Amino acid sequence: MQQGHTVFFKNAPRLIATGSIAGPKECAGVIGKFVDKALSDDTFGEQTFERAERKMLLYALEASIAKAGLQKEQVDAVLSGDLLNQIISAGFAARETGIPFLGVYSACSTLSEALLLGGVLVDGGYARRVACATGSHFSSAERQYRYPLELGNTRPPQSQWTVTGAGSVLLAAEGEGPALTCGTVGKVVDYGVSDVNNMGAAMAPAAADTILRHLADTGREPDYYDLILTGDLGALGSRLLKELVRERGADISANHVDCGEIVYRVVEDEFQGGSGAGCSAAVFCSYIYEHLLRGDIRRVLLAATGALLSTVSSGQGETIPCIAHAVAIEAEIGGLHSTMPHIYRASKGE
Amino acid sequence: MQQGHTVFFKNAPRLIATGSIAGPKECAGVIGKFVDKALSDDTFGEQTFERAERKMLLYALEASIAKAGLQKEQVDAVLSGDLLNQIISAGFAARETGIPFLGVYSACSTLSEALLLGGVLVDGGYARRVACATGSHFSSAERQYRYPLELGNTRPPQSQWTVTGAGSVLLAAEGEGPALTCGTVGKVVDYGVSDVNNMGAAMAPAAADTILRHLADTGREPDYYDLILTGDLGALGSRLLKELVRERGADISANHVDCGEIVYRVVEDEFQGGSGAGCSAAVFCSYIYEHLLRGDIRRVLLAATGALLSTVSSGQGETIPCIAHAVAIEAEIGGLHSTMPHIYRASKGE
Repeated sequence: MQQGHTVFFKNAPRLIATGSIAGPKECAGVIGKFVDKALSDDTFGEQTFERAERKMLLYALEASIAKAGLQKEQVDAVLSGDLLNQIISAGFAARETGIPFLGVYSACSTLSEALLLGGVLVDGGYARRVACATGSHFSSAERQYRYPLELGNTRPPQSQWTVTGAGSVLLAAEGEGPALTCGTVGKVVDYGVSDVNNMGAAMAPAAADTILRHLADTGREPDYYDLILTGDLGALGSRLLKELVRERGADISANHVDCGEIVYRVVEDEFQGGSGAGCSAAVFCSYIYEHLLRGDIRRVLLAATGALLSTVSSGQGETIPCIAHAVAIEAEIGGLHSTMPHIYRASKGE
Repeated sequence: MQQGHTVFFKNAPRLIATGSIAGPKECAGVIGKFVDKALSDDTFGEQTFERAERKMLLYALEASIAKAGLQKEQVDAVLSGDLLNQIISAGFAARETGIPFLGVYSACSTLSEALLLGGVLVDGGYARRVACATGSHFSSAERQYRYPLELGNTRPPQSQWTVTGAGSVLLAAEGEGPALTCGTVGKVVDYGVSDVNNMGAAMAPAAADTILRHLADTGREPDYYDLILTGDLGALGSRLLKELVRERGADISANHVDCGEIVYRVVEDEFQGGSGAGCSAAVFCSYIYEHLLRGDIRRVLLAATGALLSTVSSGQGETIPCIAHAVAIEAEIGGLHSTMPHIYRASKGE
């Protein structure tokens, strides 16, 4: 890479539009008035949750293209992936668009991986416009990864709640919007956590590794960013991340926010907060993007994390390998930055 | 994209080394004396087939790096994916290398997608060296996608046999080896085939679409290439591809070869030939790469195909969306080209 494992986008591709959609539970929270579509029914009129998930992803994709005033034919590629086996939500949604499709997968870090690779395609002049999209659905994830919904299993206090939602970012070589300025590729980090109900603890070390390498590669201090945004560490994982980073000599406690920690109004069910590829996607593509457009926040490091496990790997006794890809998004390069006065912060443990 | 949906690599990244490994059944065929490691035991000394699969992938990765005379620290990123749910083979193998990891997925077209995106990273100066790798294992695929092995199910005549094998290509900005000159991004194509035992028929239209777009975007005739190499269409799919392309006014019958069709010595079991992400990877990274180095063939269009289904999508009655990404690999740009006198061709139906 150009510096360590960080790529720098010399032409600063723009995030010219986003599309977002989320379920009723999600829209009861802070993102509710920012998403393009707030579902009142989490089946989205479909017969299966899998079909609802891909319909949400397609909706977000199409919304991002339409909001940029473009036709599908003007988008060179869709970079997308999701949590379902063989990323079927992304594949089937791409089929409906007819846009060339590059499947990517890094679990709940898929949005930041897609933005990083999409950024390279646009920045290098290989594509004019690409859509980067992902999503998840509580009910399809639950039955694939955990138990049949009908079983009514209890959940341990360290567990999280998969977000029903999707988001898409349209990246373009030309246009208005915040710029993608650089990105750091994640390494697979595994501290030996094997509790599939404690993803925040499993993923926090990967986030710490990537954020620290990003700061080292760019020579930036944490306060360069208004917001160091992780995807779905949840409340416990977020505290662990701050501690892990502090141990290694940096302090992100003033500007770290986790999408999973802020997505829900805290009631008993969600415990540590939201999770899933749709968590960072729905939050970033609605609430955060809107604040970037308004200038309330100007520099965001989006470092979504992913747990690279499967039910088979866990069943065979493996620990959980995790990853975090980070991308820097800057509304005004070199401008003064505020200290995110308007960004909602979860109150737990702060 | 720069032309249609094709990207052109102005700096022609080099394929400086490959690594390859395959199982005993595979090594009884044409690739046997070209792979870096021919397994005599398809468990590779592991307790589970999933562990064997990831060990093969790691072997191929490490072999490609070692054969280039490099250390892992000198490789900027691994682009990899595989057929297992949540691409666990790729994720766990990347964990062992410590190299930054970008997960990609387009089923059995994963190698060509990885080469295309890896090519963009290297060509654009975003990375110096990247490894592009994938693999598959008959026994892990069989029990994930079809039936428990112990059931001893019979197989219909249109079925294929998942290749036990893996391959890795090391792409670099500098060095010796054939060059990556351009690549065409696949679209998701679905002609309505829903028979999961007839992947060749499902995937042939995607291959035809990408190959025809590639020829149109580049202004090349089919005979520009010594070899138009698909991944795992099998004998039936290969015939369908030639027919579909002919219907649209081009003739690739003189230079099309399918890795799945040539990988096995034809005995009753494999019916239409090999399949799986490891099929194109093991064949390309051993047999084909060696012939490129020898100069027997000079221009290859690698257009591996992938079927973007899952057991859930099939169970819910969906058809099979397919994709093919194509990359052009040229041993001597602008040089004379032979007519692949040494390339083995399957005799079935030719």
